[in-house]
Amino acid sequence: MIIISADGHAGADLLDYRPYLESRYHDEFDDWAKTFVNPFQDLAAPEAERNWNSARRQRELEQDGIVAEVLFPNTVPPFFPSGSLTAPHPGPQEYERRWAGIKAHNRWLADFCAEAEGRRAGVAQILLNDVDDAVEEIKRTARAGLKGGILVPGVAPGAPVPPLHDPRYEPIWRTCAELGVPVNHHGGTGAPGLEPNPVALAVFIVEVSWYAHRALWHLILGGVFERHPDLRFVLTEQGSDWIPGVLKTLDYYFSRFTSGDATAEAKFGGMAAGALTMKPSEYFARNCYVGATFMKPSEIPLRYDIGVDRLMWGSDFPHDEGTFPYSREALRRTFHDIPAAERARIVAGTAAEVYGFDLTALESYGVGPAEAELTVPLTALPEGATSPVFNPETIIRAW
Amino acid sequence: MIIISADGHAGADLLDYRPYLESRYHDEFDDWAKTFVNPFQDLAAPEAERNWNSARRQRELEQDGIVAEVLFPNTVPPFFPSGSLTAPHPGPQEYERRWAGIKAHNRWLADFCAEAEGRRAGVAQILLNDVDDAVEEIKRTARAGLKGGILVPGVAPGAPVPPLHDPRYEPIWRTCAELGVPVNHHGGTGAPGLEPNPVALAVFIVEVSWYAHRALWHLILGGVFERHPDLRFVLTEQGSDWIPGVLKTLDYYFSRFTSGDATAEAKFGGMAAGALTMKPSEYFARNCYVGATFMKPSEIPLRYDIGVDRLMWGSDFPHDEGTFPYSREALRRTFHDIPAAERARIVAGTAAEVYGFDLTALESYGVGPAEAELTVPLTALPEGATSPVFNPETIIRAW
Repeated sequence: MIIISADGHAGADLLDYRPYLESRYHDEFDDWAKTFVNPFQDLAAPEAERNWNSARRQRELEQDGIVAEVLFPNTVPPFFPSGSLTAPHPGPQEYERRWAGIKAHNRWLADFCAEAEGRRAGVAQILLNDVDDAVEEIKRTARAGLKGGILVPGVAPGAPVPPLHDPRYEPIWRTCAELGVPVNHHGGTGAPGLEPNPVALAVFIVEVSWYAHRALWHLILGGVFERHPDLRFVLTEQGSDWIPGVLKTLDYYFSRFTSGDATAEAKFGGMAAGALTMKPSEYFARNCYVGATFMKPSEIPLRYDIGVDRLMWGSDFPHDEGTFPYSREALRRTFHDIPAAERARIVAGTAAEVYGFDLTALESYGVGPAEAELTVPLTALPEGATSPVFNPETIIRAW
Repeated sequence: MIIISADGHAGADLLDYRPYLESRYHDEFDDWAKTFVNPFQDLAAPEAERNWNSARRQRELEQDGIVAEVLFPNTVPPFFPSGSLTAPHPGPQEYERRWAGIKAHNRWLADFCAEAEGRRAGVAQILLNDVDDAVEEIKRTARAGLKGGILVPGVAPGAPVPPLHDPRYEPIWRTCAELGVPVNHHGGTGAPGLEPNPVALAVFIVEVSWYAHRALWHLILGGVFERHPDLRFVLTEQGSDWIPGVLKTLDYYFSRFTSGDATAEAKFGGMAAGALTMKPSEYFARNCYVGATFMKPSEIPLRYDIGVDRLMWGSDFPHDEGTFPYSREALRRTFHDIPAAERARIVAGTAAEVYGFDLTALESYGVGPAEAELTVPLTALPEGATSPVFNPETIIRAW
């Protein structure tokens, strides 16, 4: 079996970004790095090198049955206070040097992907502060061979950049559509900042997925998929169980918007819906994908409502909540009793299509479990496994 | 049948607030009112007097079969840029005079309720900028006989006041619990500001309910119902179909928080959940109610999952989306085939309990349809009816 992880995380150790940073920022970087304290304990641990040690990463992934992966960010790029995935958008005074930091990561990532040619699809980062800058970097990273496309940062309410439905982002969508660059949006992003107290953290955990999901209806209602029928949009690591309910909800509002009745809902919504020729669920079925990461058994019965061809499994390596080193067990637990063709699509076929992996070439590495292994039900959970896929809960979440 | 509307809206015409405003603000009010342009067309229409013309209001409600109602705000109080229900929290420099405006409304409302003694439960408004001020006003309005309790404004992400789970609001919850004052939260509130373009409006319509629902888990996770087992909290005009899915989602996260495993979710969430002795759904069943307003037939099958004793019907008079003048038809459409005791609870019994209406006294007015009338299925929708209760859609929304 070919197993592609549609959700991996990688990045350089802080000082290793220096050679990738434009030299005019080196002095400033040296000063900044001297006093910077990394807020992530796991990036100080010996295992942190999984983010940047190419050989170790490849060895561990292969042991885990994974032949190729899509690479989202994880570490702290130059001049960021924290991980760039969840860091809020910089204000104008911080933009310039953060943008330099982001580009350093993208250059590092291109080299890191080249170390395992054809097996790593790196996702380039952009910022939304300056659309021209973003478009230029999208073109550059596409030329540089980053097959993962771009990561569109989440925009929290009150952020210093407009929401994702704003028309000023159109050049970004147009460029991605023209170049065939996938647009990714990752869980954990788009949520407002929080105070570090236990209740605020618990509320954050409950709400954070919803804030990431917003990108879906912002792009649909903003007409992005109407204007760009070929654009591919991926919602990664934010579950898949919410999709059927949310699509029904969006279709409901769309039907209200197009009802032509005299209510304010129909009046105001109708002006936006007038630019759309399909229902929200139809745009989803055509343009959208779910990087469903560590899929749980409870998500399997929903696969026809989501679309079997929309789902991509991922291991979330090297995160604690990821399936490593029990990815084989995770795959057995979730996929043991579904038709072989569906399993192959979810664990590899769709990711190959979206991110341009060559399945024939990947097969030649001889990595991955035998198909028969994955049809054996998992009878005992692996000791010490921390991924939610091994939780007993089977709840379908509302978002 | 006694029919109580748990969701009505009322307020004074702008200049009629003047006598209720502390006299030291009169000059400032006169200057402000001279240039103020009311943004609501419906408040300039002849029908706007339904908000403040006591005799007309009572006559129309009685024709519609409604004997009593709970009164939320609708009009613009002194110094507000727009309706106080959805107006964002004032910054510190605007607080003083807006607070004077809110108190003027509360004094007007007490008089308006006294004009139909026992048949109007007015909901007092507060602001969250100054907790001491709010507590004082809660005590004053309770003494003044406003049986509707208080309206807690929604707090949007990025608002100039802390989120509703913040411990600094504890004196508000404690005061309401001690005095038996119901705490209401109304749909349409708690959403971030929006730019006035069609897509932003459509996105707002899709998202606005979720922002209002946040109060539910903010208060649960903030331990408000743990500390105040008798506090009554009402979520009004934000649907009811989302409740079962959201309670399952909250219970799911609670089970993750209390799992004791090594994930970040369990670690951070566990600190908040450690202060709770029940599951979120159990607090809901004990402390929370749904002012479900114009309930649709599609919400009826969910009533046992929500709790029949948690639901309160409302007409949303005098809004366009309300059921007037077809409340009888709306009631027939939704409730014709449910057991009589359940119907009586949803259309009157629970509202009487929560807001202190005297059902025996209300019966003496002889207002309301015969029970037999409401058991006749509605075969044709009334011409020109604008309430969503008459829409054909039967979708259960995710939020």
